[in-house]
Amino acid sequence: MGKAVFYHAGCPVCVSAEQDILQLILAEQVEVVHLGTEKGKVKDADAAGVKSVPALVLANGNVLHINFGASIDDLK
Amino acid sequence: MGKAVFYHAGCPVCVSAEQDILQLILAEQVEVVHLGTEKGKVKDADAAGVKSVPALVLANGNVLHINFGASIDDLK
Repeated sequence: MGKAVFYHAGCPVCVSAEQDILQLILAEQVEVVHLGTEKGKVKDADAAGVKSVPALVLANGNVLHINFGASIDDLK
Repeated sequence: MGKAVFYHAGCPVCVSAEQDILQLILAEQVEVVHLGTEKGKVKDADAAGVKSVPALVLANGNVLHINFGASIDDLK
């Protein structure tokens, strides 16, 4: 299985979720992308089906939206 | 760290999320509770802060609401 990608935007909800997710999943199984500082990757997240952050895009293509920090539209 | 509890209600969103979560987390780290068949546990989920299912209540007490299948209020 490939890597999952955890998209976030530095919001408090995101940071809390990130810490929780990284306790559950082995760090080497997940790539963490901060869409606030890596604006160029917003289009990748959008194309993957991410509607809000924090979100975890799995290797199988499924998107898990975890709680709600910010809409992807607000990051464009 | 204690066990996490994954609450769901048998909905398609729940089942899909359950399969994904159980691929990410070791099965022995998570207890799966079906609130549709275990109605008595709805109050536990409510007390833990679960607003909708599927949701993962972590050992540290944090609640991760994953996507949206059904409101906890609709299960009461």
